Amino acid sequence: MEQSFLAWLRGRQRSLPQVAVGIGDDAAVVDWPHSRQLVTSVDTIVDGVDFLLDQHSLAAIGHKALAVNLSDMAAMAADPVAALVAISLSNENATQTAAGIYEGILETAAEFGVAISGGDITCYDGPLAISITIIGQSEPQKAWLRSGALPDDVLLVSGSLGGSILQKHLAFTPRVRLAQQLRDRFKVNAAIDISDGLLLDLDRLCAASGCGIELELDKIPVSEDALALGEQKGSEPLEHALGDGEDYELLLSCSADQAAEILNADLGVPLTAIGTMTSRTGLWSKLPNKLIRLSPRGFVHGG
Amino acid sequence: MEQSFLAWLRGRQRSLPQVAVGIGDDAAVVDWPHSRQLVTSVDTIVDGVDFLLDQHSLAAIGHKALAVNLSDMAAMAADPVAALVAISLSNENATQTAAGIYEGILETAAEFGVAISGGDITCYDGPLAISITIIGQSEPQKAWLRSGALPDDVLLVSGSLGGSILQKHLAFTPRVRLAQQLRDRFKVNAAIDISDGLLLDLDRLCAASGCGIELELDKIPVSEDALALGEQKGSEPLEHALGDGEDYELLLSCSADQAAEILNADLGVPLTAIGTMTSRTGLWSKLPNKLIRLSPRGFVHGG
Repeated sequence: MEQSFLAWLRGRQRSLPQVAVGIGDDAAVVDWPHSRQLVTSVDTIVDGVDFLLDQHSLAAIGHKALAVNLSDMAAMAADPVAALVAISLSNENATQTAAGIYEGILETAAEFGVAISGGDITCYDGPLAISITIIGQSEPQKAWLRSGALPDDVLLVSGSLGGSILQKHLAFTPRVRLAQQLRDRFKVNAAIDISDGLLLDLDRLCAASGCGIELELDKIPVSEDALALGEQKGSEPLEHALGDGEDYELLLSCSADQAAEILNADLGVPLTAIGTMTSRTGLWSKLPNKLIRLSPRGFVHGG
Repeated sequence: MEQSFLAWLRGRQRSLPQVAVGIGDDAAVVDWPHSRQLVTSVDTIVDGVDFLLDQHSLAAIGHKALAVNLSDMAAMAADPVAALVAISLSNENATQTAAGIYEGILETAAEFGVAISGGDITCYDGPLAISITIIGQSEPQKAWLRSGALPDDVLLVSGSLGGSILQKHLAFTPRVRLAQQLRDRFKVNAAIDISDGLLLDLDRLCAASGCGIELELDKIPVSEDALALGEQKGSEPLEHALGDGEDYELLLSCSADQAAEILNADLGVPLTAIGTMTSRTGLWSKLPNKLIRLSPRGFVHGG
């Protein structure tokens, strides 16, 4: 299948200026601008874990496969340039399935100016799995790392959180453009995207920076889907916002001055200040008279 | 598993000068030299198809996963720089299995100066599958393509062919260093590596170049494993050399002058002239008094 499929894909792909030699040879050749670093990441999504082949559209699955990787580029403030796609799937309807997935990938790739610079299709006796490698570019020393947060930084979060299982985990917009605007106009000290849950990913950012955080839980933007899910399940919407994950929103640490300027700017995506970085390590909930320690996986009472 | 595994891997990996930010953040950051193009490719290998988990060592499987990609870099005359590794495997002994595979990957990566600039491990209900994306560098317009062969070019092949199933498909040395020497000292017009079989891959090179080939079948270097396999199975060793595939040797098309110089040079790997490119398309066997047409998938008698 692969040769004829790649020929189809070659014709189907909008040609992008950075591609010197497209797919179809032993490898693709991509032009690279002077003085730019590569920012690279790989993520796999699998049927039954990250999506449901019998419920979700192939295009939505393809979108998610690329978008989770674009979210990593956003978290690094990198400009996505090229993606390589490895699809493993069962023999049954393999060509149609792969083509349907590529429709979603190509649409999202076109939206973000990403070239497909490699493809592999493997038929096997296993669940549909899509691994995408993304290659982005960054000016030297300009990529956002998890490790740059400083005590007294304000922590910002984009969008709203929780309840992603209802729709957002498949249909989200990776925050690439937001990151590009912030990078070009402001100074962000550290960033991470929320894939595994606000508290868990925030704990990673704190650990990498050697900081802690005092969160104002009442400031956390709880999504409508978190409210709906709370109603459905009789659970706390805030718990969904803190722990559900797959929000693919950005957590950004920056100085109080920069935070104030960012919050005054119109960036097209809501941003909310939800806490302050501290030199005391750990995750803390700031209440009027005391601090309560939070566990990365949920509340720990007392403290 | 993934976080602690990536921490282990971070410690295990020899640091390479091109890695500005290693794995462990949302993405890795890789320095890139001025005026170099990216050469990119992705390949997946799967248990039961490309290796046998119950027979082959994990390190050998890891070596193969990277080496098939390095072979693509050789076929493009690109210098491999970085690789991203996505492993999907069942939950049982997942950490040990992944670590064993990485031992093989890291050893081969160190041998060729390749940084691991991304990793993803997914537990799922399917066969062990390893997708590796390789990123190489090339001077502009210097990558070897399949499409550059010219009529009257001499076709060279490295090493010897056939019987790879006995051992070579797992244990081969990708021809990266040979390609680098040839690129730096000679002019090669077109190249491809032999993954699916001499005739099939040669047919691809011919099709991309709009050429044909007159092969001298008696010149084709038949490997000892092709002879052994022929003896075992009562088959023709030459047929194994023509069709087995997974030789991961290079087919190189260059002018007669360059071919003569290359054959006189000591490059550490045997090279053999096996035919002449022609303006008449198709694969032909040159016999003293006639030409016999060959099918990419084996002999077609008459013609």
